[in-house]
Amino acid sequence: MTNADFQPVSGFDLPRYAGIPTFMRLPCLQPGDALYKEVEIGLIGVPWDGGTSNRPGARHGPRQLRDLSTMIRAEHPTSGVRPFEVANCADLGDVSPNPSDLMESLNRTVAFYERIRDDGIIPLTAGGDHLVSYPILKALAAERPLGMIHFDAHTDLYDGYFGGTSYNHGTPFRRAIEDGYLDGSRVVQIGLRGTRYDLDDIEFGKKHGVTMIMIEELMDRGPADVMAQAREVVGGKETYVTFDIDFIDPAFAPGTGTPEIGGPDTLTAQRLVRELTAVNLVGADLVEVSPPFDQSGNTAWVGVSIMFELLCVMVQSLKK
Amino acid sequence: MTNADFQPVSGFDLPRYAGIPTFMRLPCLQPGDALYKEVEIGLIGVPWDGGTSNRPGARHGPRQLRDLSTMIRAEHPTSGVRPFEVANCADLGDVSPNPSDLMESLNRTVAFYERIRDDGIIPLTAGGDHLVSYPILKALAAERPLGMIHFDAHTDLYDGYFGGTSYNHGTPFRRAIEDGYLDGSRVVQIGLRGTRYDLDDIEFGKKHGVTMIMIEELMDRGPADVMAQAREVVGGKETYVTFDIDFIDPAFAPGTGTPEIGGPDTLTAQRLVRELTAVNLVGADLVEVSPPFDQSGNTAWVGVSIMFELLCVMVQSLKK
Amino acid sequence: MTNADFQPVSGFDLPRYAGIPTFMRLPCLQPGDALYKEVEIGLIGVPWDGGTSNRPGARHGPRQLRDLSTMIRAEHPTSGVRPFEVANCADLGDVSPNPSDLMESLNRTVAFYERIRDDGIIPLTAGGDHLVSYPILKALAAERPLGMIHFDAHTDLYDGYFGGTSYNHGTPFRRAIEDGYLDGSRVVQIGLRGTRYDLDDIEFGKKHGVTMIMIEELMDRGPADVMAQAREVVGGKETYVTFDIDFIDPAFAPGTGTPEIGGPDTLTAQRLVRELTAVNLVGADLVEVSPPFDQSGNTAWVGVSIMFELLCVMVQSLKK
Amino acid sequence: MTNADFQPVSGFDLPRYAGIPTFMRLPCLQPGDALYKEVEIGLIGVPWDGGTSNRPGARHGPRQLRDLSTMIRAEHPTSGVRPFEVANCADLGDVSPNPSDLMESLNRTVAFYERIRDDGIIPLTAGGDHLVSYPILKALAAERPLGMIHFDAHTDLYDGYFGGTSYNHGTPFRRAIEDGYLDGSRVVQIGLRGTRYDLDDIEFGKKHGVTMIMIEELMDRGPADVMAQAREVVGGKETYVTFDIDFIDPAFAPGTGTPEIGGPDTLTAQRLVRELTAVNLVGADLVEVSPPFDQSGNTAWVGVSIMFELLCVMVQSLKK
Amino acid sequence: MTNADFQPVSGFDLPRYAGIPTFMRLPCLQPGDALYKEVEIGLIGVPWDGGTSNRPGARHGPRQLRDLSTMIRAEHPTSGVRPFEVANCADLGDVSPNPSDLMESLNRTVAFYERIRDDGIIPLTAGGDHLVSYPILKALAAERPLGMIHFDAHTDLYDGYFGGTSYNHGTPFRRAIEDGYLDGSRVVQIGLRGTRYDLDDIEFGKKHGVTMIMIEELMDRGPADVMAQAREVVGGKETYVTFDIDFIDPAFAPGTGTPEIGGPDTLTAQRLVRELTAVNLVGADLVEVSPPFDQSGNTAWVGVSIMFELLCVMVQSLKK
Amino acid sequence: MTNADFQPVSGFDLPRYAGIPTFMRLPCLQPGDALYKEVEIGLIGVPWDGGTSNRPGARHGPRQLRDLSTMIRAEHPTSGVRPFEVANCADLGDVSPNPSDLMESLNRTVAFYERIRDDGIIPLTAGGDHLVSYPILKALAAERPLGMIHFDAHTDLYDGYFGGTSYNHGTPFRRAIEDGYLDGSRVVQIGLRGTRYDLDDIEFGKKHGVTMIMIEELMDRGPADVMAQAREVVGGKETYVTFDIDFIDPAFAPGTGTPEIGGPDTLTAQRLVRELTAVNLVGADLVEVSPPFDQSGNTAWVGVSIMFELLCVMVQSLKK
Repeated sequence: MTNADFQPVSGFDLPRYAGIPTFMRLPCLQPGDALYKEVEIGLIGVPWDGGTSNRPGARHGPRQLRDLSTMIRAEHPTSGVRPFEVANCADLGDVSPNPSDLMESLNRTVAFYERIRDDGIIPLTAGGDHLVSYPILKALAAERPLGMIHFDAHTDLYDGYFGGTSYNHGTPFRRAIEDGYLDGSRVVQIGLRGTRYDLDDIEFGKKHGVTMIMIEELMDRGPADVMAQAREVVGGKETYVTFDIDFIDPAFAPGTGTPEIGGPDTLTAQRLVRELTAVNLVGADLVEVSPPFDQSGNTAWVGVSIMFELLCVMVQSLKK
Repeated sequence: MTNADFQPVSGFDLPRYAGIPTFMRLPCLQPGDALYKEVEIGLIGVPWDGGTSNRPGARHGPRQLRDLSTMIRAEHPTSGVRPFEVANCADLGDVSPNPSDLMESLNRTVAFYERIRDDGIIPLTAGGDHLVSYPILKALAAERPLGMIHFDAHTDLYDGYFGGTSYNHGTPFRRAIEDGYLDGSRVVQIGLRGTRYDLDDIEFGKKHGVTMIMIEELMDRGPADVMAQAREVVGGKETYVTFDIDFIDPAFAPGTGTPEIGGPDTLTAQRLVRELTAVNLVGADLVEVSPPFDQSGNTAWVGVSIMFELLCVMVQSLKK
Repeated sequence: MTNADFQPVSGFDLPRYAGIPTFMRLPCLQPGDALYKEVEIGLIGVPWDGGTSNRPGARHGPRQLRDLSTMIRAEHPTSGVRPFEVANCADLGDVSPNPSDLMESLNRTVAFYERIRDDGIIPLTAGGDHLVSYPILKALAAERPLGMIHFDAHTDLYDGYFGGTSYNHGTPFRRAIEDGYLDGSRVVQIGLRGTRYDLDDIEFGKKHGVTMIMIEELMDRGPADVMAQAREVVGGKETYVTFDIDFIDPAFAPGTGTPEIGGPDTLTAQRLVRELTAVNLVGADLVEVSPPFDQSGNTAWVGVSIMFELLCVMVQSLKK
Repeated sequence: MTNADFQPVSGFDLPRYAGIPTFMRLPCLQPGDALYKEVEIGLIGVPWDGGTSNRPGARHGPRQLRDLSTMIRAEHPTSGVRPFEVANCADLGDVSPNPSDLMESLNRTVAFYERIRDDGIIPLTAGGDHLVSYPILKALAAERPLGMIHFDAHTDLYDGYFGGTSYNHGTPFRRAIEDGYLDGSRVVQIGLRGTRYDLDDIEFGKKHGVTMIMIEELMDRGPADVMAQAREVVGGKETYVTFDIDFIDPAFAPGTGTPEIGGPDTLTAQRLVRELTAVNLVGADLVEVSPPFDQSGNTAWVGVSIMFELLCVMVQSLKK
Repeated sequence: MTNADFQPVSGFDLPRYAGIPTFMRLPCLQPGDALYKEVEIGLIGVPWDGGTSNRPGARHGPRQLRDLSTMIRAEHPTSGVRPFEVANCADLGDVSPNPSDLMESLNRTVAFYERIRDDGIIPLTAGGDHLVSYPILKALAAERPLGMIHFDAHTDLYDGYFGGTSYNHGTPFRRAIEDGYLDGSRVVQIGLRGTRYDLDDIEFGKKHGVTMIMIEELMDRGPADVMAQAREVVGGKETYVTFDIDFIDPAFAPGTGTPEIGGPDTLTAQRLVRELTAVNLVGADLVEVSPPFDQSGNTAWVGVSIMFELLCVMVQSLKK
Repeated sequence: MTNADFQPVSGFDLPRYAGIPTFMRLPCLQPGDALYKEVEIGLIGVPWDGGTSNRPGARHGPRQLRDLSTMIRAEHPTSGVRPFEVANCADLGDVSPNPSDLMESLNRTVAFYERIRDDGIIPLTAGGDHLVSYPILKALAAERPLGMIHFDAHTDLYDGYFGGTSYNHGTPFRRAIEDGYLDGSRVVQIGLRGTRYDLDDIEFGKKHGVTMIMIEELMDRGPADVMAQAREVVGGKETYVTFDIDFIDPAFAPGTGTPEIGGPDTLTAQRLVRELTAVNLVGADLVEVSPPFDQSGNTAWVGVSIMFELLCVMVQSLKK
């Protein structure tokens, strides 16, 4: 059953520090390639940070996430899932943004994901700042609004910044709800914390039925209970997962643009993602890894480890 | 009610990385300035590390705490307090120490805080090493001993070091109790851990009725329970809060002079501080951030985030 | 003669690591302030990196340059110039860009510098990426083209990137020549090196009479000889100086977006700038310091040291 | 009772940053020295990383562990044990490996520990990669298999890598069980996590009766419960303790060769080790600290703090 | 003439931080690929540091050199050479070593380069520690000894270390001369410096006619003069170039295993390599970049910039 | 002739990263030790930074200088001197300062060096900030003023700071001249640069006949010419050498408290020191290495490399 063409290079054969770094050592394929048509899950980079309101650098995220991803092995330690044997996974390369033109870059990203969608590939994306989720949702939700499970310190539901910016990394999900790509009543945000400008984002979320779970509530109730609620919120319909690395405490993931103290540890993050197995997933992303703010690569290692957790639940969702 | 003259620059107007960094983007005022008389809470730096027995660098703390503080926004995420609308807060600049003369520097610090006290301003201080709490207490407690809630890995109750040093960052609270600035029976120390030289500090504390809570006890009982006891210890009378950044585990706050492993995370620290709302606060400090030991600024980000927590309970205390 | 209101805080009085960091510890003034009208030279930050084609981070430049600038003292070591006694210098704060809107940010920068120009202040700017020179030139050269002495590893004379970007940090001087803000025949570029895309920039420069001096020629001829030529090129008319920190070898200044090996050391850079005393200067900038790529601050220390060199020749130019 | 010849230099007398760094500021002794015969516990470095399959650098571990160890004081904060007054402890220097000859280095290490064993000294070792436990076990278990308590993210029970390597840091305990140095039924592994190549290691462990406790089980049951089981597994017979620093979450200990996210914090690690007091200990090691991956020294500080915890239970075991 | 199949991705089209990093953004080919037969120059990584006597980490060199190499553009700034239009260049991936078996790794490297040699491809190698030059020479010089131009702080002519190691990074060229892969009289070593163990290496070199140029002589005579001599030494016959990054001063290239102060700057290094155009080159390598000792990537940027210089003279040599 | 008891451990026998780090792997001796009486040159640490006016951290200098010094080998590369075979050298440990008491620390240092002097040992000191030279001179020059060759970016001839500090790292040589420990007419200062407060230091120097050579003059005349003058200034009488690491450009030695750009490279520094062979040396120091400002250790590597250069000329001076 296992498709030999889609198996990653093993660290038993080639040391994990060797070789050209594709995502998880998977084959890198482009539309014209013979194997491309067999791809079921595509790992894609969006090297973009033009939507960043504070510290930039997320444009370097996909490169470093690929680098660290070569330390990922074949099998999940608790579920025993071997994702590369369950679904045909491949690295589909990077979207090519124009770092000096925000709207053009959004358009290019939409086009890239429309092709992915049309080719029947489920995308697992490595950002990039959180604005990248917007064009992905635009492509994936063209025909009906999606539900979304959103791990983040911030709501990203603000209206605008700096006297008139509609599209930046603090606004994507407000835009997506306004544009009908997300069904607010099927959106759950987990891990919110940090000082706020005002209540504009919270009120928008409440008005559209978004479920918002603060970090204190998460820690008091625990991952299993919160995720039971999250699954209920999104229900059985198509759902997207977006994971902002700043959801995790900056001691574990310092390399990000807008860190907020008081977040969960990585084990909590892993346990949350593992509760997604019953969800009907149409895509996922891991965003806001900013390598210049953690040149050690430790944040990217956290990031790709979470991507592997996401991949394991995606393949299970896919095969149901 | 909100005093427009004391509002910080908003990150919606000027990006948070822009502008000259005052504490929390507040106006910087000096005694002669027109607005100075309206100040209720003063944020002050004491750039000093001459009391450090091990790793220096805390002299650079105020500079970096100001830098990172521009990422603080206007509103507390759980209490909803908007401190800058509740009390008139301002950056009052730095005490000017003489790095080669310890006693002279203590005197200058005492003089600075006597003026603050006489001007009716509640100080929120950014250290500097922990010795800076001593001259602050000397100024604030000139007329009667204070109670104190003390977050720290160490008691700072030692008698002396290196064959005869009475004033360094391991001795401030012994001196303050001896000199009558603190009432030992109204002092509670939380988070103690790390290897010890001997029992001299513990025995001094016990003799003077200091309540000492080890890290294991804190973690087993939880923040709410421990802080209920702390509030009982200090009672309704005037109380000072001192927060040594090494209270927090060095994974979260590595930039400090005497790190001890096995500490709490930042969420625990936040929850502890939030329990101070019913306390009669006359001042607070956040000390021992040493930027050279964490050039990333992450420790300073933890530090100013805790300063914001302290500020929110201070304004509530002030307005009761 | 010395204006006491414009003297920086001395490191003899307040240690250089203390206090709120304005540029070179000068007073920070805004248009409404009483002293503002007396300002002759304004130090200004443009915290912007939206024009960056590769590594971002220059938006954090002004903050860190101010931080390190507090190590600058009052007197130049070889010329003996004491600039703050020669001209009234002040920190005029930062331009407020919109990091998600390039054209709007350019407009805001133009407006800021038009006011500076109209107020008769000579600007010494801290970038920001090299695109910031374009709006500054647009303001300063509104009435006639300027000459320019340009220290850089790159010509910044390219036409566009990424399928259609006209304004980024590789294009400012092509735009400025095209728009009549620079007289190509009075422009000299010094220190060019690094691999090239093609000859498009070189050919544009040649066509417009730009003098281009490669790094090898600079090192072989020496600073004095090259600068004699540079002075001849710009002549006695009004001239702008732009100094890209990547002119200096990345061993000395690693914190920049587009480093090229094989550059000059800092002493060579200092000697070059010192040869500008006879030039008719209307402004200068130091750009492309990107703190995230050198969190030590060493690059910013090089940057502000060069800014001090520029300031010393500017005050001499001003007083002639 | 306290042997004055074996007391470490006190930080009250000589600042902790001063002096030549031996382990915990103990005397450094060699076989010929007069005091050598009185040594009961020997702290030894094995500067070796030739068994590393991924990131090297553990060869630099002993040097940095010694450096940071000078911050250790005399007394344990919760047990009150003063280990240097209970047993004669000394720094016995480093094994001298040949970094280009793996088998020769193993032989040299075996010989070093055979001498230690024959001299009646209990070794507390600082690695080095985890392969160093194998030659130590070979020396200590020459006459009968030992039990072992093993803190690690990995089983280190693999058979071989890279087409035929039998001895590397992923195989030591498989070799030790095969060779009769460990009794699998008296081995317990705690903290296992991270992606896996396959089930080969798990199956080998199960076949030999190894008790394996995943990280989730550890966190759910808590240190006391897990360690009660561990003590039951090893029973009253001679037992070795091996502590791989990657057991601890990489936020706390990033400087290691094969980090896995989702690990415990340092307080959990301390509490686990403290449960070893009733165990019959014949030696212990702390391995896999790789300074080049954390030049701050923070990981080494965690490492030596754990070594002190191990030492405190070792002296208690010794004196029973 | 230009072969479109072998052109690197342009930074004008895809930002240089985007995409999967192959060497200089060239196609990555393997023996079975259709284009493989057209390859003229192959860029190859040897991720190996088992020969390192001091600081390890060079195994991570090829990965980081590829990462930084995406900043290389198409054209040499002084010669105007556009190497990718002159010769068909490709990334041929990494040799797969066994990090725990030195002799096996040497054999695998020899086999890899024998295939390259038999396929008529000129190799440009990225190390790896300096031992990797030995198996490359063994493959390339199987039929006759080569001449060699060797840039290095060290002779690498020692006989052995640590009581019997014949193959480590201090011995490769002694072995190569002994084994007849190098003709000592056609070997020139440039840049020697640093403290020495003894004169064993120097005497071996003298005995075999090796030309040794100390750093002082290089700096006093200058690149052109020294390289004229070097060209004379190697003459018109086949010659290999090996460039140890520690040739360059550690201020410019700190990320290496055995740094020696007092070295040349990068411009001197570039000028030296540019003098190789008339040499009959059969291969070249750039070795000893150790990323863990410079996580900023600056050393790797120096390294790939030198690789580009080497490539430009190699294509000129190839086409003569 | 070579004294086997004073030979350092060879890197051929024990890898240079192994073992407890004494200075240059020499034996560590104390007054009571049998070999102590045979010591001719003593390497001593003064872990002190209480005289620092800006960035602290030099207290950590001796520790890191010892660490890096294990990379030093036995023989000088150009002179061929094997210092450990010429004179009996030993590590004599650290002076024990009191970091909170400046005057007491000066007294302890004087006492330490008086003993060294009385024991007929020539000291080679590793600082510590530059104030440490003052108590050393006080001990060595008790009976007659010394000449001094002083490599530094600063004169250290200021009178006082911060409203009354007489002893800090900007004043030692003014105090030493005033107190008669130095003969100003036999003092030469080389490498002066950086911005100045005022001319007070220069005028004091001139008044006392100090020869001051600015960096520009040094670079224009070259090491040989400048040192010929320096030798003439100090003449044949007893002379001390003090080397502030900030003499060297901060690109090469960033880890220091008061960096000034525009300095010489390390080869220039080496060549300057090598010109000291004919000088009558009574001691030397290398100061101002501040590890927290360069955790890589690169600055310390420069520092110990210069210490080795100093040692080689000291042994030659000793044996004349």
